[in-house]
Amino acid sequence: MSVTAARGFTATGIAAGIKQSGTPDLALVVNEGPRDAAAGVFTANRVKAAPVLWSERVVKGGRVGSVVLNSGGANACTGPEGFQDTHATAERVAQLLNQSAGEVAVASTGLIGTRLPMDALLGGIGTAARQLSRHGGEKAALAIKTTDSVHKTAVAERDGWTVGGMAKGAGMLAPGLATMLVVLTTDADLAAPELDKALREATRSTFDRVDSDGCMSTNDTVLLLASGAAERTPGYAEFAAAVHEVCESLARQLIGDAEGASKDIRIEVVGAATEDDAVTAGRSIARNNLLKCALHGEDPNWGRVLAAIGTTDAAFEPDRLSVAINGVWVCRDGSIGEDRELVDMRYRQIDITADLAAGPASAVVWTNDLTAEYVHENSAYSS
Amino acid sequence: MSVTAARGFTATGIAAGIKQSGTPDLALVVNEGPRDAAAGVFTANRVKAAPVLWSERVVKGGRVGSVVLNSGGANACTGPEGFQDTHATAERVAQLLNQSAGEVAVASTGLIGTRLPMDALLGGIGTAARQLSRHGGEKAALAIKTTDSVHKTAVAERDGWTVGGMAKGAGMLAPGLATMLVVLTTDADLAAPELDKALREATRSTFDRVDSDGCMSTNDTVLLLASGAAERTPGYAEFAAAVHEVCESLARQLIGDAEGASKDIRIEVVGAATEDDAVTAGRSIARNNLLKCALHGEDPNWGRVLAAIGTTDAAFEPDRLSVAINGVWVCRDGSIGEDRELVDMRYRQIDITADLAAGPASAVVWTNDLTAEYVHENSAYSS
Repeated sequence: MSVTAARGFTATGIAAGIKQSGTPDLALVVNEGPRDAAAGVFTANRVKAAPVLWSERVVKGGRVGSVVLNSGGANACTGPEGFQDTHATAERVAQLLNQSAGEVAVASTGLIGTRLPMDALLGGIGTAARQLSRHGGEKAALAIKTTDSVHKTAVAERDGWTVGGMAKGAGMLAPGLATMLVVLTTDADLAAPELDKALREATRSTFDRVDSDGCMSTNDTVLLLASGAAERTPGYAEFAAAVHEVCESLARQLIGDAEGASKDIRIEVVGAATEDDAVTAGRSIARNNLLKCALHGEDPNWGRVLAAIGTTDAAFEPDRLSVAINGVWVCRDGSIGEDRELVDMRYRQIDITADLAAGPASAVVWTNDLTAEYVHENSAYSS
Repeated sequence: MSVTAARGFTATGIAAGIKQSGTPDLALVVNEGPRDAAAGVFTANRVKAAPVLWSERVVKGGRVGSVVLNSGGANACTGPEGFQDTHATAERVAQLLNQSAGEVAVASTGLIGTRLPMDALLGGIGTAARQLSRHGGEKAALAIKTTDSVHKTAVAERDGWTVGGMAKGAGMLAPGLATMLVVLTTDADLAAPELDKALREATRSTFDRVDSDGCMSTNDTVLLLASGAAERTPGYAEFAAAVHEVCESLARQLIGDAEGASKDIRIEVVGAATEDDAVTAGRSIARNNLLKCALHGEDPNWGRVLAAIGTTDAAFEPDRLSVAINGVWVCRDGSIGEDRELVDMRYRQIDITADLAAGPASAVVWTNDLTAEYVHENSAYSS
């Protein structure tokens, strides 16, 4: 399934020798047409990896013929030489597939600040090009994993057309943790501006609302490619809903596989004056290390929720804030509410509702707990 | 030493039974005069604990006769009842010491969202008032500890006058970790506006530049009391330098005792367009969980420094950023610099220098590494 669920796409994933471990590290996704419309969303980090700088240009043209992705190296902070490496990567793909390099998107993930082993990478592209398959989506999804414990794919099937996709990483777009790479494909026939609109709308309320550790990557990339192979043009709303469904599924899979996490935490901020306020408050809660530790310990420490909200400029009055954890309103009107002993925190998902009592807007932000395993994984692994 | 190093002050610390552990939990610091000028700086969190709301009012009057501090409970998010508890606490101190309640500052630290055991607290105040001593500074410093492994005191002696102080916590003022409480005393004879100016200047470049885990407390309080007992009025610059010296020492002690920390990390941002830019970039680096994990693992992962800078709005060009770790310029002009293998990270202190190449301004921010012990301490301990 994955990126080859939709017709008009081939893909594969191979071990090119970029990773010293010898596990798969190179994926290729090719739009076989008849159309090649595309859109992309990239990291908001001002320090952007070479492949992000490259792919932003590619996507501006509204056409993407193929995407080459590698794990085992981010090609970020590698100077003009690193950009040349990305350029050479796109050229090699273009040459083998008879495409224009200007329509080959590149995405990389791994350690920042080291050059890619270009011999292995360019050689691997040759191997991958020979192994492209209409059933290669799973292999591609496997090859982009870094610290992911499982590969992530999702598909939305509609009447005669499909949206599918793959993702790696455990974080978010802006800002984002350990790099998130996502490729979505569809066989619906839509023009680049519509793809762009649907993708931006979907990422805004899915990938952008996942905040695993508040760290923004240099490499986050989300691409949407349309082949038109289904020879159908769905209505915009219907198409946007399908893109949203796939993004939502992949975003949940990302947070569920976040580094070291033992709890998935859903934070819903209600009663906000604006949606921006709701997101701001939700993100501040999601990033509070003390709260994330408490939730790891199954401690319904609602005071840390209020302390996190208090650091924001969202509209609220401290004595009107209320907080529920797993349905128990442990804080009402800024003070002690129901007995915290009533909160059952045995399960993996924890639901926090924060009511700002300042208006009608709301938003949901997902995060996870902070664990000793997260520390271990990110201190022992140079990523 | 501590708050009784300067003449004109008495203090003590006792176990009032607020903490279930039976360890000291109540401190009293009394200005015996002849003057009672004072200044204070409080958390920037919009969710403020009852004692912060109370003490802000007290300090506005420019006079503080005594400070009562308790650990074992923050009295934050406790509603009007919690504020009444703070008021009753001040009243009891005032009654026993023959002062006005409006000149009794109150500071609390501990779990948010629980009422204080007022019987124990009010009884303890009676005991403490009987034990006040000119040598009680150490006892007071011990009684305000929560997760602190050691008590923190500092003294600056000058020609005929002294500034001394105590601190608890492991964090910062705005924002601040596990609550920071600081009481400074001096026997110099200065008016409240000068105390206020000196205290704000000192905190701005000491406590405000310590960012252990990016979490801002509801209770942070820094007070400066002047007794005038030395019958000296130093020049402002000389006095401000002494206050700065004591704040600097206490701030370093706080970061050195941060929860679970195994590394003290000094981040100096140079070449910034403005001091604000330097602080913004430094704080972003200090809060990057991925970097803090890497440094815990003695991994000179400079890419995470650039990724952190890239999330800020400070003036810089990505291809002009340079980073040194322990003196080795591992990143130059946004790309790979000297060999990272050259970085020796065996010692507790790690020095990071980030050059924004955008101007003449600089700032230093201190943080610590993120460890499994931090997670353990904050998931197992309801604070």
